[in-house]
Amino acid sequence: MSDVTDVISIFSKLPGIGKKSAARIVYHLLKNQQDGIELSIHLKTLMDNIKNCSLCGNYTTNDICEICSDPQRSIGQLCIVEMPSDMEAIENTGIFTGQYHILLGSLNPIEGITPEHLRIKELLNRLKDNEINEIIIATNPTIEGEATFLYLQNLIDNEKYEISKIAIGIPMGGSLEYTDKLTLTKALQQKLIYKN
Amino acid sequence: MSDVTDVISIFSKLPGIGKKSAARIVYHLLKNQQDGIELSIHLKTLMDNIKNCSLCGNYTTNDICEICSDPQRSIGQLCIVEMPSDMEAIENTGIFTGQYHILLGSLNPIEGITPEHLRIKELLNRLKDNEINEIIIATNPTIEGEATFLYLQNLIDNEKYEISKIAIGIPMGGSLEYTDKLTLTKALQQKLIYKN
Repeated sequence: MSDVTDVISIFSKLPGIGKKSAARIVYHLLKNQQDGIELSIHLKTLMDNIKNCSLCGNYTTNDICEICSDPQRSIGQLCIVEMPSDMEAIENTGIFTGQYHILLGSLNPIEGITPEHLRIKELLNRLKDNEINEIIIATNPTIEGEATFLYLQNLIDNEKYEISKIAIGIPMGGSLEYTDKLTLTKALQQKLIYKN
Repeated sequence: MSDVTDVISIFSKLPGIGKKSAARIVYHLLKNQQDGIELSIHLKTLMDNIKNCSLCGNYTTNDICEICSDPQRSIGQLCIVEMPSDMEAIENTGIFTGQYHILLGSLNPIEGITPEHLRIKELLNRLKDNEINEIIIATNPTIEGEATFLYLQNLIDNEKYEISKIAIGIPMGGSLEYTDKLTLTKALQQKLIYKN
């Protein structure tokens, strides 16, 4: 059984999966061998071939990812995010149809992550050659994300581009009563004015 | 992104994993490539090499599984279960130290699962050659499991073996109030008599 135990233990390290769920999954895969083979082959192929899109940094198995090579998307807008999963979250909203630039991280001096570790050079190269006129910075509202935003804001020539940042506020379905002070402060500061 | 999406969709079919958790797991594996490579290699190796122990039917990468080849375990007791995961659950209690026989299923005439589809022939062969004197049937308390129990009870010579069946009752931490009638009936029928 050693190999079964090994695989259960590897599964149990995945986010959101405990020891019991891991065992359940592995026994499911062993019982439904077709599913197990399918997952093993696809995951192996993915891990062997995955790389970052040479333009935006997104995960892809080609040189240029599907989003960057989509001629339907507008080329004037660029949304800067930390990770491909952030991009995916924005894609799921369906309201952004421009280009992305993925930094593959955020500034974190304590962990030694400086601008050289992020895809900043690639960003500046893209801005040089490109027809982009609007930049939306969508870093996370964390210390690292805010630091990255400030760094980018200073770096990017704001006479050439319209720079904006996604709003911090109370999430849909949330309540003022249980919203932390910092979020509420930001939500008030960013209040949307309805003109008559 | 097609391969990333494919793998997310395959993960989302696993028990207990929805679309969001699947995406979280895959992005975790892509971010922590070492984990992704480790999982992909181990899972591939497991799926390529897994087979059923020729004695008990347990999943193993060898001919005989670890439990069957353990000289420390008593050879007089045989516990019959439906699936390797049931065996694993009993192993986790630590109180059974005998041998196992895994049927790899349970009788289900509606789905066409008859005794020929289970490891019954292998069971009879083992009983022929073996020093087993006690048989514990630990099929699940479901319609299929009960049918399998009745079939085995008729099949196995009860003059040669002491045959028992694990108890059906109220689970630890459960309450009589919320226990279904059938379980409560069984629990009363199987009441444990304390002798003075």
